[in-house]
Amino acid sequence: MVPAPSFDLTANEFDLSTYLTERRQWVEAALDQALTLQYPETLYEAMRYSLLAGGKRLRPILCLATCELLGGDRAIAMATACALEMIHTMSLIHDDLPAMDNDDYRRGRLTNHKVYGEDVAILAGDALLSYAFEVIARHSQGADPVRVLRVIADLGRAVGGEGLVGGQIVDLASEGDANVSLETLNFIHNHKTAALLEVSVTAGAVLAGATDAQIEALRAYAQRIGLAFQIVDDILDITSTAETMGKSIGKDLDAQKATYPSLWGLEESRVQANRLIGDAKAALADFGAGRQPLLEIADYIVARTH
Amino acid sequence: MVPAPSFDLTANEFDLSTYLTERRQWVEAALDQALTLQYPETLYEAMRYSLLAGGKRLRPILCLATCELLGGDRAIAMATACALEMIHTMSLIHDDLPAMDNDDYRRGRLTNHKVYGEDVAILAGDALLSYAFEVIARHSQGADPVRVLRVIADLGRAVGGEGLVGGQIVDLASEGDANVSLETLNFIHNHKTAALLEVSVTAGAVLAGATDAQIEALRAYAQRIGLAFQIVDDILDITSTAETMGKSIGKDLDAQKATYPSLWGLEESRVQANRLIGDAKAALADFGAGRQPLLEIADYIVARTH
Repeated sequence: MVPAPSFDLTANEFDLSTYLTERRQWVEAALDQALTLQYPETLYEAMRYSLLAGGKRLRPILCLATCELLGGDRAIAMATACALEMIHTMSLIHDDLPAMDNDDYRRGRLTNHKVYGEDVAILAGDALLSYAFEVIARHSQGADPVRVLRVIADLGRAVGGEGLVGGQIVDLASEGDANVSLETLNFIHNHKTAALLEVSVTAGAVLAGATDAQIEALRAYAQRIGLAFQIVDDILDITSTAETMGKSIGKDLDAQKATYPSLWGLEESRVQANRLIGDAKAALADFGAGRQPLLEIADYIVARTH
Repeated sequence: MVPAPSFDLTANEFDLSTYLTERRQWVEAALDQALTLQYPETLYEAMRYSLLAGGKRLRPILCLATCELLGGDRAIAMATACALEMIHTMSLIHDDLPAMDNDDYRRGRLTNHKVYGEDVAILAGDALLSYAFEVIARHSQGADPVRVLRVIADLGRAVGGEGLVGGQIVDLASEGDANVSLETLNFIHNHKTAALLEVSVTAGAVLAGATDAQIEALRAYAQRIGLAFQIVDDILDITSTAETMGKSIGKDLDAQKATYPSLWGLEESRVQANRLIGDAKAALADFGAGRQPLLEIADYIVARTH
């Protein structure tokens, strides 16, 4: 894992872009190092193809940020940060499969199964998922083992039926149904998107030894940015261009997928996203000046164009 | 997790069939309890359909057996035992998919994707895999957290590129190639079959606090029964009937798959399997009378007819 210099907030010169870029580079270096090419090369190439394909690295960055916010050494959270990105990548590879969303492009490149075949894509996802847990268990040096076990348990829950997979199952079952309720739509996205963002935020705090009250405040923050993130995704699917997004656009409309804009309209969707971001930031009121990165990340989520 | 009465070896009345049946029942009760039906029901039904479809439960039984051999309370290994079966089940669900081995029957019933569809089958596998790690991390009460982390790390490695998935990738790549070397065949089965059996054996020992020397002796035992297990599987694929095996038979020949009998012939394959079992048992020489279950399980592996 890559050691990372400490961020100095006292200088009062916080710049989000610099902050995100720096952390993205640390995370990408750590991912590159964690997953080197070995026999059987096809498998490792397929894993690396999707894992190192860019992206915002938002989940690892959130994990490192809350660890620092609670005064923890960022190094103890780097393994978990990498694991979060491996799991996010696994979910993208499997969601893109022909049997699921059947997508040909992701982040501006061919999807994993278009390059390596469906069999390898399924297995690359499986390997990324199991490797994620291995990395946390093996490389969280300096962290309290009981806290590491809690992170693994929370992460496991965020992936399975009570998380990503549960959301994806309901999403697939709702496709083509024009009358999906707001309740179902919220279930889908609270599980498919918000659950992993939530554990990204809480895991860093758990590793740093946060109190239960601090973890609950961070959970409230994470749930709200998670849902706002999805609302903005839905808005961008309608208003953005394929070039900016690097993936197929307008797919939700084509697939007759219920989205927040289809339920609320574009304007009300923007209002709701902004309200959620306001609530998310308010949940951090009891943290000190160290919360600045999390506040600005929340704003960034609604302001982003891709 | 289900509490299990202690097994009394001092009575000198060891009966393998009773031993296996009793433990299989404990494991099935624990699995049934660990994975209850909840929303979204389709997902949990699909997970339970394959997880509770019977089978020998050899991996969990080995895990409990080595924990007891080292004087550990079996209860501390029950979560890991369940996790091993969840991971084994996940690998069967994904291997049976049309993009992989394309099997319609497993354990005498339709395969998961034939009942629930490919999308649900892929996701049920993903959920079983992540849930396996969650169960160990959350329910290994009474076990030393550092040992639990080691088990999670070892299990993660046994699933990914250095285990199950690595073996399956090379297996798929070798299909239709009549000139597969013994080295490649060994790689496939050391990874596809032996790796998970190996961690089944070592995990129980790690949880019970085994010394490094004890773990290495158990690893030698496990690797040998793992390879013997696969040789016997290959033999049964040729000599058994579909009714006895509960799955498609003769598939290896149809798919022009290299097998041990195709390399060595049936008779030499039987000799090699018996030699491995002898070596496996010899590796346990330094353990006391408590090794009886492991010795008899080794014999059972070559003697089984399905």
